[in-house]
Amino acid sequence: MIDVCLLGCGGMMPLPDRRLTALLIRVSGKMVLLDCGEGTQVGLQLAGWGLSSLEAVCFTHYHADHIAGLPGLLATLGNSGKKTPLCLYGPPGLFSVMRGLSVLVPPLPFETYLVEGPDSRKGTIRIGEAKLSSIPADHTAPCFSYRLQLDRAGKFDEKRALKQEIPQCLWKRLQKGESIQWNGRRIESQMVLGPRRKGLKLCYCTDTRPTEEFLRFCRASDLLICEGMYGQEEKRPDAIRKKHMTFSEAAALARDSGSKELWLTHYSPSIKDPFVFLDLARDIFPNAQAGEDLKKKTLFFA
Amino acid sequence: MIDVCLLGCGGMMPLPDRRLTALLIRVSGKMVLLDCGEGTQVGLQLAGWGLSSLEAVCFTHYHADHIAGLPGLLATLGNSGKKTPLCLYGPPGLFSVMRGLSVLVPPLPFETYLVEGPDSRKGTIRIGEAKLSSIPADHTAPCFSYRLQLDRAGKFDEKRALKQEIPQCLWKRLQKGESIQWNGRRIESQMVLGPRRKGLKLCYCTDTRPTEEFLRFCRASDLLICEGMYGQEEKRPDAIRKKHMTFSEAAALARDSGSKELWLTHYSPSIKDPFVFLDLARDIFPNAQAGEDLKKKTLFFA
Repeated sequence: MIDVCLLGCGGMMPLPDRRLTALLIRVSGKMVLLDCGEGTQVGLQLAGWGLSSLEAVCFTHYHADHIAGLPGLLATLGNSGKKTPLCLYGPPGLFSVMRGLSVLVPPLPFETYLVEGPDSRKGTIRIGEAKLSSIPADHTAPCFSYRLQLDRAGKFDEKRALKQEIPQCLWKRLQKGESIQWNGRRIESQMVLGPRRKGLKLCYCTDTRPTEEFLRFCRASDLLICEGMYGQEEKRPDAIRKKHMTFSEAAALARDSGSKELWLTHYSPSIKDPFVFLDLARDIFPNAQAGEDLKKKTLFFA
Repeated sequence: MIDVCLLGCGGMMPLPDRRLTALLIRVSGKMVLLDCGEGTQVGLQLAGWGLSSLEAVCFTHYHADHIAGLPGLLATLGNSGKKTPLCLYGPPGLFSVMRGLSVLVPPLPFETYLVEGPDSRKGTIRIGEAKLSSIPADHTAPCFSYRLQLDRAGKFDEKRALKQEIPQCLWKRLQKGESIQWNGRRIESQMVLGPRRKGLKLCYCTDTRPTEEFLRFCRASDLLICEGMYGQEEKRPDAIRKKHMTFSEAAALARDSGSKELWLTHYSPSIKDPFVFLDLARDIFPNAQAGEDLKKKTLFFA
């Protein structure tokens, strides 16, 4: 399963009741943060999932509303006694951004690993048992969209296992997809597993125009969390010029990709209440929901 | 008069109901911000004094809890259409800190002036009709304490003005302390003003140990806003080691300087409710108050 918590759903500037962009994901007991706008560490406290299992912070891009919460978060992670490494991942530019921000970051008691993803194709890192992939987005600065995939192994076939005289103490590891050397014999998981079953797919894109590439990338996602910088359709020229989306464009992405559910996020501060414009998305994609700070969901295997 | 609004009273890390350190001051229609921790721009929105008259942001020092809100604030000031210059002032190190932070700051439609104050003596800038002075503090990094002084001219003596045949159209300017050239005659304000009257003095110090120099600097202040990183007296060894103060040390500063009122601020996140420890300060200085986010006061001439 995958736990999701939208820590902040604001774009550009925070509002008293809306933090800036950040999405917290937990999978296999590991956490990853996508974006880290100002106020993210408060969102993390309110989410209540702790800090110690945070493995990575991945950035769509380096505009302040997506990263200015990082120095404070790093300091707080340091004060919390974190010892395990933290991976920072994002589009090209990460090294120089982190060099700049280092003026605010105190000495940390844990290692940080900086990884600049490839700028023209898919990059991947591993979070627990899941794969987090990035592809280039279409914004005014180098920007990534993300996809988290949690595969699901085939069903364990006890009869096959017993027939092949595979000892029961190995079943759990084989179920997880491991290959095992046992008493001079190599046992592969596919010897006891049925066909691979449908896994889980969570996609996240902000700030970007809709792209054909992303449409393919997020095909059949269980949850698509997508920017909706503008509500009204009349704002589409602004969305095009500033490389953002309207609610209806996000909804079309959800519909055309065959996604199951859409959460809108990264609202312009001029949108005081996203519910006012929600029908513009629901007319196109009925399961469109307005993201809110601390909106949570757990995605389960079907 | 001087308007004061404590935008954030937290030290180290923000809490859901406590923003990081920032103090907003308005005098003669101009605003100055002392420190700018994460979340300050939300505090500014809630204070409701607008953004357009912000003239300066002055830093005690450059630890993240005092400056990490700056990149977001600058971006928001830019988006708000600010055209007038902004002065950034603080202890030595400002230039390199701002060079680092520039990775997060978009092109701005207003000028910024960076001023590093002197590191071993008093520095001064002007905010409206008031003087804002800094002196070195005693922290683990170069750090300033601040004092805002608004002088009050002597009482206007109408009889003297009439006797000296000074035309009434000049009275207002003379009351403000101007010297005026009029029909070949030089008219000085002291020709019509009584002795200088007591002005207003607001002092602000965090993060620092109490110092003899600051005690003299804040002598007879109308309001002293002072850090109280630790409540319990048992934490004094921590306060000494980490160059902070306890509530009782802040209270002793207020008492010994002959200040009228004390607001405690910059609480450790371990202090969930500063009122629990407030008597430790009030036993020493009865007019000690616990700072809270958005605590406001207007200082009037006596």
